[in-house]
Amino acid sequence: MTAYCVELVHVGTELLTFKVNSHTIALAQLLAPLGLRVARACLAADKIEEIAGAVRLALSRSDLIIVTGGLGPTFDDVSREAAGLAVGRAMESKPEIAGKIAAKFHKACLKMPISNARQAMILKGAVVLDNNVGTAPGQFLDLGRKALLLLPGPPSEMKDTLRKALPLIRKKFSAEKLLMRSFRIAGHPESQVEEMAEPILRVFSDREVEKTILAAPYLIDLVFQARGRQARRVLPAISRMIKKVFGNDLLGDASETLENKTGRLLKKSNLTLALAESCTGGMIADRITDVPGSSAYFVEGIVAYSNEAKKRSLGVSQKTLQKFGAVSPETAARMAEGVLRKSGADYAVSTTGICGPGGAVKGKPAGLGYFGLARKNAKAAIFKKNFSGGRLTIKEKMTCFALDILRRDLSGRANDPR
Amino acid sequence: MTAYCVELVHVGTELLTFKVNSHTIALAQLLAPLGLRVARACLAADKIEEIAGAVRLALSRSDLIIVTGGLGPTFDDVSREAAGLAVGRAMESKPEIAGKIAAKFHKACLKMPISNARQAMILKGAVVLDNNVGTAPGQFLDLGRKALLLLPGPPSEMKDTLRKALPLIRKKFSAEKLLMRSFRIAGHPESQVEEMAEPILRVFSDREVEKTILAAPYLIDLVFQARGRQARRVLPAISRMIKKVFGNDLLGDASETLENKTGRLLKKSNLTLALAESCTGGMIADRITDVPGSSAYFVEGIVAYSNEAKKRSLGVSQKTLQKFGAVSPETAARMAEGVLRKSGADYAVSTTGICGPGGAVKGKPAGLGYFGLARKNAKAAIFKKNFSGGRLTIKEKMTCFALDILRRDLSGRANDPR
Repeated sequence: MTAYCVELVHVGTELLTFKVNSHTIALAQLLAPLGLRVARACLAADKIEEIAGAVRLALSRSDLIIVTGGLGPTFDDVSREAAGLAVGRAMESKPEIAGKIAAKFHKACLKMPISNARQAMILKGAVVLDNNVGTAPGQFLDLGRKALLLLPGPPSEMKDTLRKALPLIRKKFSAEKLLMRSFRIAGHPESQVEEMAEPILRVFSDREVEKTILAAPYLIDLVFQARGRQARRVLPAISRMIKKVFGNDLLGDASETLENKTGRLLKKSNLTLALAESCTGGMIADRITDVPGSSAYFVEGIVAYSNEAKKRSLGVSQKTLQKFGAVSPETAARMAEGVLRKSGADYAVSTTGICGPGGAVKGKPAGLGYFGLARKNAKAAIFKKNFSGGRLTIKEKMTCFALDILRRDLSGRANDPR
Repeated sequence: MTAYCVELVHVGTELLTFKVNSHTIALAQLLAPLGLRVARACLAADKIEEIAGAVRLALSRSDLIIVTGGLGPTFDDVSREAAGLAVGRAMESKPEIAGKIAAKFHKACLKMPISNARQAMILKGAVVLDNNVGTAPGQFLDLGRKALLLLPGPPSEMKDTLRKALPLIRKKFSAEKLLMRSFRIAGHPESQVEEMAEPILRVFSDREVEKTILAAPYLIDLVFQARGRQARRVLPAISRMIKKVFGNDLLGDASETLENKTGRLLKKSNLTLALAESCTGGMIADRITDVPGSSAYFVEGIVAYSNEAKKRSLGVSQKTLQKFGAVSPETAARMAEGVLRKSGADYAVSTTGICGPGGAVKGKPAGLGYFGLARKNAKAAIFKKNFSGGRLTIKEKMTCFALDILRRDLSGRANDPR
């Protein structure tokens, strides 16, 4: 079976100067389920001849060419024109697209600048891919044996328009499916996950399965890819082994998040949640409320950054603060119990710690955090952790840990997470 | 003066599948002080013919070609061989380099695997660039008018070996310094910023100054680059014009954030802040507390996601909620005043709105938000906005808008931000 070749052209001078390009990976992961592998990628400046040259070269050696970026309304957005030049196609203005763009401005009570009209220019013969997030539509141009796809640069717009191109791509480039199975592990460092997974990694050869380990703060992803029949044999076996080795440390696949998982568990049990955050500064609430429908279970969060707020809004006593300090197991317990009592929620989670770089004292280094988990009619459970990294990494790890405590408790097999 | 052209070839199948490539930006920033601009970059899989092809193409159109990655000891590290193929050079084993590598293993009490011997293979005529961090040395090959540089892939090793190549590069490609000036504009859509900046953009030709516009939710960056003496003449003039056109819409340079700026303004005036968030769900607090030292001015945040929480923790009356609804100017005002009174802070900001996709009702679509700004001894000011996008985009725009209301008020020229 043919293995089609995908080539990416990422447009934007900023990608060559100061902005990291994350589009290659995003596209690779969205195309893998169709059996398509990204063979090459290049970064091109916002210059018409550069982009046209890259597209021409790509067309000469690849099957599907995807151009990202350069579809905006401003002078330096020239991907449309460059693509037209490369494939020898004129453009035509589509009034219905211009109308849609104008309607978006109208809805936001803004007048549409004349420059946005350029976004309604479409390569002759191209299929228009509606953009529900921003203004520039994507374009899919069938070129016989090959195809050219133009997608807007902002990540959410790129994903939205690519989603609409997928059926067209699938129809044209059907391949033996490249199947991927991913697993997200919570609470272990990367090297430990690798050590634990080693027996699994060793069973299958690199020819059979492509294996990858990816690390993010607190979460490690294991990714396995294989093709067709082999995949159907090998991937379920890997899945069984992973579940056996990692148990409740396995959060789900690589698209699972702690806030989604926790949200589903709360909803399923018809339980409500309140938060009392100090060191995490609202990040837990922010992530909980990233989930659509979270108002069904999230009642209230208190970001008690000052001692005064801990006393006033959470009922932590001056005595507790004085005797044990704000960063202490006792304060964490009182915070969780306080917000639980006050809000009437079924569950409460609290955090108090030091994210650094300032604030460390003897015996309490930056990275130290105490976490409380309170349930109705029960004493709060307390967890202590030391995390490493800069301020934002520590804050994120602490947020993940707090969500993970809740997840493990909710999933009913709660043990002290490592 | 000649503008030399740098082209990057980043080697590694992982860069085409799951690993974000940060080398382009790192190299661009390390080369800019030498006046060298990265013109193009491409990502190539760990295949000898792919890498050789990319290097050949780069040599045909660029002056300095830098290959990163693929210098490791394992079977899939083939950049040395590919580069040799592309430039028609044989390789030779350098015993003194093999000795150095062996010594590194010895120091770590490890036996050197035989595969590491490959790392001592050097293109004939290349200057060896010692690697003090890892095992693979870099290589600099002078090709007359052009040059080829091979650097190891791990970021710290890449930087270490590049540092040693810089004198060779400077000697061969001396150019005028490339200077950058960036400006971050708050509260206008991208096309409107362009319209406002148009007179400035028109004064300077593309030959004099390279111009870029970059859009993020709520914030737009204008970036200008110029060389040497021209830069010293042109960039300050641009800076003056931008300040005049954008006034208080100008947040700072492209590294400035709303939370940093707001934090500095609060600190400077010795003022404290409290938050009452509904639709933004803690995101404002999260961003405020991303700033080191924010505990000096941030007192408390209430994430009042439910109506109960708005009543209990912010003192919004049942009557207000019933008569006007949770998403209303009246509720926004009571929320800001409530948290101000309760916390004793000098300033309070509130948000109530609909991030979607659920929750919209007739007359109150997803994207609608009301924002309150309360100061001690004054009635809360209320702002209304409609934002477009998905849930997370709307949430981020609302967060930015709330921070921007505060920034504008603090910076003393507060008008209704658009």
